[in-house]
Amino acid sequence: MKYLLLFFLSLSLTINAQSDEDVLKIIYYQTLTNGKSYQWLDYLSNQIGGRLSGSVNAELAVEYTKKELEALGLDKVWLQPVMVPKWVRGTKEYAYIEGASGRTTTVNICALGGSIATNPTGLKANIIEVMNFEQLEELGKEKIEGKIVFYNRPMQPDLIHTFEAYGGCANQRYAGAREAAKYGAAGVIVRSLNLRLDDFPHTGSMSYGDIAPQDRIPAAAISTNDAELLSSMLSLDNNLKFFFRQNCKQFPDVESYNVIGEMTGSEFPNDIIIVGGHLDSWDLGDGSHDDGAGVVQSMDVIRLLKESGIKPKRTIRVVLFMNEENGLRGGRKYAEEARAKGENHIFALESDSGGFTPRGFSFDCSDNNFTQVKAWEPLFKPYLIHYFEKGYGGADINPLKVDGTVLAGLRPDSQRYFDHHHASNDTFEHVNKRELELGAGTMTALVYLFDKYGVNPIMKTKEVKN
Amino acid sequence: MKYLLLFFLSLSLTINAQSDEDVLKIIYYQTLTNGKSYQWLDYLSNQIGGRLSGSVNAELAVEYTKKELEALGLDKVWLQPVMVPKWVRGTKEYAYIEGASGRTTTVNICALGGSIATNPTGLKANIIEVMNFEQLEELGKEKIEGKIVFYNRPMQPDLIHTFEAYGGCANQRYAGAREAAKYGAAGVIVRSLNLRLDDFPHTGSMSYGDIAPQDRIPAAAISTNDAELLSSMLSLDNNLKFFFRQNCKQFPDVESYNVIGEMTGSEFPNDIIIVGGHLDSWDLGDGSHDDGAGVVQSMDVIRLLKESGIKPKRTIRVVLFMNEENGLRGGRKYAEEARAKGENHIFALESDSGGFTPRGFSFDCSDNNFTQVKAWEPLFKPYLIHYFEKGYGGADINPLKVDGTVLAGLRPDSQRYFDHHHASNDTFEHVNKRELELGAGTMTALVYLFDKYGVNPIMKTKEVKN
Repeated sequence: MKYLLLFFLSLSLTINAQSDEDVLKIIYYQTLTNGKSYQWLDYLSNQIGGRLSGSVNAELAVEYTKKELEALGLDKVWLQPVMVPKWVRGTKEYAYIEGASGRTTTVNICALGGSIATNPTGLKANIIEVMNFEQLEELGKEKIEGKIVFYNRPMQPDLIHTFEAYGGCANQRYAGAREAAKYGAAGVIVRSLNLRLDDFPHTGSMSYGDIAPQDRIPAAAISTNDAELLSSMLSLDNNLKFFFRQNCKQFPDVESYNVIGEMTGSEFPNDIIIVGGHLDSWDLGDGSHDDGAGVVQSMDVIRLLKESGIKPKRTIRVVLFMNEENGLRGGRKYAEEARAKGENHIFALESDSGGFTPRGFSFDCSDNNFTQVKAWEPLFKPYLIHYFEKGYGGADINPLKVDGTVLAGLRPDSQRYFDHHHASNDTFEHVNKRELELGAGTMTALVYLFDKYGVNPIMKTKEVKN
Repeated sequence: MKYLLLFFLSLSLTINAQSDEDVLKIIYYQTLTNGKSYQWLDYLSNQIGGRLSGSVNAELAVEYTKKELEALGLDKVWLQPVMVPKWVRGTKEYAYIEGASGRTTTVNICALGGSIATNPTGLKANIIEVMNFEQLEELGKEKIEGKIVFYNRPMQPDLIHTFEAYGGCANQRYAGAREAAKYGAAGVIVRSLNLRLDDFPHTGSMSYGDIAPQDRIPAAAISTNDAELLSSMLSLDNNLKFFFRQNCKQFPDVESYNVIGEMTGSEFPNDIIIVGGHLDSWDLGDGSHDDGAGVVQSMDVIRLLKESGIKPKRTIRVVLFMNEENGLRGGRKYAEEARAKGENHIFALESDSGGFTPRGFSFDCSDNNFTQVKAWEPLFKPYLIHYFEKGYGGADINPLKVDGTVLAGLRPDSQRYFDHHHASNDTFEHVNKRELELGAGTMTALVYLFDKYGVNPIMKTKEVKN
């Protein structure tokens, strides 16, 4: 294979004379034979581990990725301070179902991120199953008060895009406690957002909204297997009791950082392209898919451009956002500062859908910009990249949208994503090296095209004025 | 979701009046909410296990799948007898590298399927690394005689289609012993056909060709990690010795069966469409991806047609072929009998590339037939099926090609396939339920279209006359 590498290296010396087809060949060759994303992910996952905002691990991840970006010889690497929430899970949660005879069945739960603790001795109450907020409202205070509400709406299995199925259920987790508290519930148990039946409870963020501190109730997720069990036991005996204990706690905000590295553009340094993922993760697994994968792929984009001999005309930044999971403070902070400085972000690419085989991108942009992008789709066909559709870019880059920046999200195959999402099995061994590398290569190819061709200024939906 | 199911059931009563778009919706809904492939695979993998031709497990798999097909209420289920080779691995193989000091390093190997045993006390000899047959020829008898030949050509990592990378290396495994024996080698060790670096040796078939029995030499695969180790040790000391011991044995052929189930066509019963996978597997894992997945998907095609309310106009057969791995006797037998009976096979679909997310099909057919098929591609877009290309159909259906049958192979995502192929980690937990079910649905949709529209007779490259 050595001859092939030499061939490509010689190509890269004259990269500007190469066709886009040839440059993409070089990029994909580089990622599959000389990628670094898997090695970085190994460290992030196995040497650091879960990186919840405000934790020691999150700070270790900031240090590590900064050091690694510095080692790439970029033009500039810096930390952007941002205050983040600090929520700590505490000791492992414990829960059981108690039947009329007093016999108990232990079930797998985990506190939802942002939840309050139960009493130190736990909470035991009757439990009532609902499928949605409408049903909760129908039942009303009379049936709900003093009980634990069990939200059990499953993800819709026949949707091909599993993120749609997630979207159809996420409100139970995010707002379930807030809604149930209005009817005097004592706590909530939420079916894990998992398409598979298994024993892993899946955490994720929740919010009490404007519920006063004294009226807040504890919230936990239950594994899908145990949600099925609980539901079938309730169908036989609706007088069941449920016990759970958790001692999670919200601390005052702490300072953390977005990690940013930059290659300054040779011709249009004020045109900024960013590529990023989020450095924080939930605490149960090691955050390999969510979003270690996006972090290391974004780092490798900037490295693969260099390795492929591409000298960007525009400024390319890798941005590793802090606190996507439970606050989005990093994404908001980045956009605020960019706006304050009058920076012109022409394109932002996010990878936050797992490290699976890439299928394409969704683009959040004007029709004109989408026409430009769609014309590049055939270049990706040899790499089995076929999904170029309008859609959501990503949570961390979304705050840039109001400035007219073209946003895009990498769209990997999503069938296995929710098997791991926010659960203790979001771990390194479930990431395949080639799939991860193909994602990094695909992102690099798109960044290369945006760097080369830019975004037609008249196509930008809104110009940033400072 | 119940209302949706009722809606579809009512639809299915008038399926012939439905658009193809609607029928595909029903099929995909059925596979993702009411599929049976995963349950069947669980039994095949976890209750039966690896199913090498001639083994007790292979016979159990014949019995089980016949019984399950019978339970589907098909028009006909039968066994087609076929004589198959019976090769038995025997006790676990053992191997080590021995340095000049006499210090030994144990390595992971497995006998290649069809290999002879070593002496009962094992074989120890100097070992010499080659990358291909050309290098073997250059070295010649003088350098090779009495030594163990170590074939270490890795799969090419930059190929997106991993089966191409496999094709580029498989001759080392299949013909490596035969070629090395010509130069008086004592045995061969072959780098596992695995793109990943890990500790699993991957077996697979090999052939001695016309080498006389007394001149045959034993052949084993070594894990990729140990191939790298051996190569690096050889680069420091080319006088290393290698020891391996295996007591595998070839027995006389035994009788086995293809398992066949049929729904007879209502309008054109003599137009036959088959869908199949191979029931045998290698013995190291449980054969979940290769080819338990193809077996249960093919069984589910015929069931999903029924569940979707589709009454085939043409005869649909599921064929579970025996002995794809080390003989292809089942595939050949099926085609022979079909030809002898003058059966008109218009279309044959095979699934033998793992139970991963389906990406499309490759079609082995005339340009005219391909034009017909290509027109169906947009129907599959909502299911992210995008790969409709000319290419190989599959080993078991290939013998039907000379009769002008249109052949197609399901093409799942291939990035992880060779992590598991023919190794002890080809096991049930590495198959994702949704990915498997999407494959079964995609196959069902294509069979539905071929049943509905047939193959234009003038497009058939050759008509079968009896």
